[in-house]
Amino acid sequence: MNAESVERKKTPRLVIIGGGFGGLYAAKELANQPVSMILLDRTNHHLFQPLLYQVATAALSPGDIAQPIRHILKHANNLEVVLANVDRVDVANKRVICGDREVFYDYLIVAAGARHSYFGHDEWEQFAPGLKSMEDVLELRRRILFAFEAAEIAETPEERKKALTFVVVGAGPTGVEMAGAIAELAHKSLAGDFHHVNPRDARVVLVDAAPRVLPAFTPGLSESARKQLEQLQVEVRTGVMVKSVGPDGVHVGEELISARTVVWAAGNAASPLGKSLGAELDRAGRVVVNEDLTIPGHPDVLVIGDMAVFTHQTGQPLPGVCPVAMQMGRHAARNILATIEGRPMSPFHYRDKGQMATIGRNRAIADLKVVRFGGFFAWLSWLFIHLIFLIGFRNQVFVFLQWMWAYLTYSKGARLIYGVFKPGGTSGKNSK
Amino acid sequence: MNAESVERKKTPRLVIIGGGFGGLYAAKELANQPVSMILLDRTNHHLFQPLLYQVATAALSPGDIAQPIRHILKHANNLEVVLANVDRVDVANKRVICGDREVFYDYLIVAAGARHSYFGHDEWEQFAPGLKSMEDVLELRRRILFAFEAAEIAETPEERKKALTFVVVGAGPTGVEMAGAIAELAHKSLAGDFHHVNPRDARVVLVDAAPRVLPAFTPGLSESARKQLEQLQVEVRTGVMVKSVGPDGVHVGEELISARTVVWAAGNAASPLGKSLGAELDRAGRVVVNEDLTIPGHPDVLVIGDMAVFTHQTGQPLPGVCPVAMQMGRHAARNILATIEGRPMSPFHYRDKGQMATIGRNRAIADLKVVRFGGFFAWLSWLFIHLIFLIGFRNQVFVFLQWMWAYLTYSKGARLIYGVFKPGGTSGKNSK
Repeated sequence: MNAESVERKKTPRLVIIGGGFGGLYAAKELANQPVSMILLDRTNHHLFQPLLYQVATAALSPGDIAQPIRHILKHANNLEVVLANVDRVDVANKRVICGDREVFYDYLIVAAGARHSYFGHDEWEQFAPGLKSMEDVLELRRRILFAFEAAEIAETPEERKKALTFVVVGAGPTGVEMAGAIAELAHKSLAGDFHHVNPRDARVVLVDAAPRVLPAFTPGLSESARKQLEQLQVEVRTGVMVKSVGPDGVHVGEELISARTVVWAAGNAASPLGKSLGAELDRAGRVVVNEDLTIPGHPDVLVIGDMAVFTHQTGQPLPGVCPVAMQMGRHAARNILATIEGRPMSPFHYRDKGQMATIGRNRAIADLKVVRFGGFFAWLSWLFIHLIFLIGFRNQVFVFLQWMWAYLTYSKGARLIYGVFKPGGTSGKNSK
Repeated sequence: MNAESVERKKTPRLVIIGGGFGGLYAAKELANQPVSMILLDRTNHHLFQPLLYQVATAALSPGDIAQPIRHILKHANNLEVVLANVDRVDVANKRVICGDREVFYDYLIVAAGARHSYFGHDEWEQFAPGLKSMEDVLELRRRILFAFEAAEIAETPEERKKALTFVVVGAGPTGVEMAGAIAELAHKSLAGDFHHVNPRDARVVLVDAAPRVLPAFTPGLSESARKQLEQLQVEVRTGVMVKSVGPDGVHVGEELISARTVVWAAGNAASPLGKSLGAELDRAGRVVVNEDLTIPGHPDVLVIGDMAVFTHQTGQPLPGVCPVAMQMGRHAARNILATIEGRPMSPFHYRDKGQMATIGRNRAIADLKVVRFGGFFAWLSWLFIHLIFLIGFRNQVFVFLQWMWAYLTYSKGARLIYGVFKPGGTSGKNSK
């Protein structure tokens, strides 16, 4: 036995792929424990995804909801953060491949998250970006703000009408938040800045195939959300299928909704990394995990968060939300520590503390299990919970101040468009 | 005489190209005056260029120093803001060409500013971006923050040393500010976040062909600035010529300074729009203007700001700084109003209230004509003046709060990198 293997016996190496909520909470749990950690991520920052829609609608700046991963975890002496694009996992040889580098592991936590899915119509993406990464939402912000500029210089009423029509596909929490925020941006924040356009004429359409908005909530709360959306002049069209998305707009059933700006908030596909693990996947590409979050045949590989499909608790998969990822991250970390210390792994159990969705200023719904409510107090609770979980004291303070400011003045502080305006069609990505 | 020409006689049309300080102050001056204004700009925002270096070094977010032009000028009922890329001016037919659109004018103010110039070596730009637009500084921020990541995963001491070497070319105010800010970022803000790198080992070299830094200031203040830079461990190399810039670093005389990150803060070239005016240009492409800011033979065309070379006052061209652009913008507006009202135009006279440059925390120099000083009070004055001229009360408040925060905690709030890390060489632009 050579020196290196003795060394590795002493401090086993854990590789974590992904610095979202799952990976971050796993790393936090194991900070300064007898394990040597390497966290791999494509970007330098942890992103607070629940507030991405506020960056897309110019209420917050990118830096407000992002924090450098190595800064969050600077007190973990046993952690190294490495910027890397992971290509695949080689479970047979216990290594992770990133381009021409390879990183060996004793234990692996895969927490690479999900992208949005176009249900086999990837060609729709260029016309209808989603909200997963900072690049996504800056592209959306650009399109939303440019839409008003295009309306200002439109030469025909039809062109102006198209420029001022926004279609949001998908009436889950993200879609509802986007529809409400675009309506408020148009009717309140931008009102008065334009000459040839009355931003109050903007039309926001929220489309979903499901029979009601926010189907994960109770029918009563869904109904409350629908009413609150309609107060914001959002057109709610549930129970209709999107047939196609293109440069003209969205085909819903037989009807074409002529729209310059389309937002995709429907459907997720797990990271393609799951394929390389050799485990069973569900239709969304998520990895079917054991009760202890490992994958069959590989007790050293744990999959968590949006990449995992966990059905052991209710028979239904757990939802792809932050609390699931956080709790899985913490549990995966504890299971690895148990193995290192010679104890058995324990099954994961999700503690559901409820859910909430915001619709706009003073408007939200909350289902806290013991109590369900909508309106102003749901909205206050939503603000409070999101501030608590936002990482970094500085970001908490500055987001709070910007929310206060926006609340008092109705104005948005981050109406900066990156890239250059092109009058025809939707704008290019990050073009100079 | 047809109806349109009667209409045009009543309210003459002024077209303003550019929403920087020159164009903005001209438009403000003529708000709700008997002239119909169209302001053309490539972006939707007015940019506070003096603080761009703070976005590049992650002290501020892009939205903090940018404000939508149409929002700033929303109370001007006689102004239309149009996003457009101006291709050229046709002075003979009094029109501005933007792609397939044309905009006719009775009066024209050209305030399209300047880009940085590489003195005929445009191939250096990819290795040494400058600081003029938001895109420029986000690219610089990306490179500066990635440099530390590259050092963290460097495999040889040479590679690590190269990654931690930053060369700033040009020791004017922008170069001095950048060099000081990078040194503080490395030695204070990032210290402790890395495992394999001691950010205090970062080397910052400030290079200029001139014999002293900040040559526009008095020799005493230059000397004070040099000392303050050296306190921040910036290597000041004046009186040396840059021979070439490439992937290996910067050739200074016979020596190669091996560096991954090079910042270009030397030399300006006026907007190429100047060429289409048919007037005399100087070597930097600036338009030689008459005393009243018009161009010879065209009393309806006024050129201001960084695009103009105005030598009537001192025999020397006025510097390309914000106060000159602001005062020229206001004066051009008044001259146009005078013509409309049948009065003669008056010559422009620049009122120089002094200049200042900041070097870092508590460090600056100020020349307020009646008094010259360096150090803490110069720094406080610099903060104060910059807050006053920053456009928008919200931005003033939030920049002030962020400065306070950074001052108290030594931390930078905007360490978000856009785009994806590539370990080899400098990173690509806005790549996904």
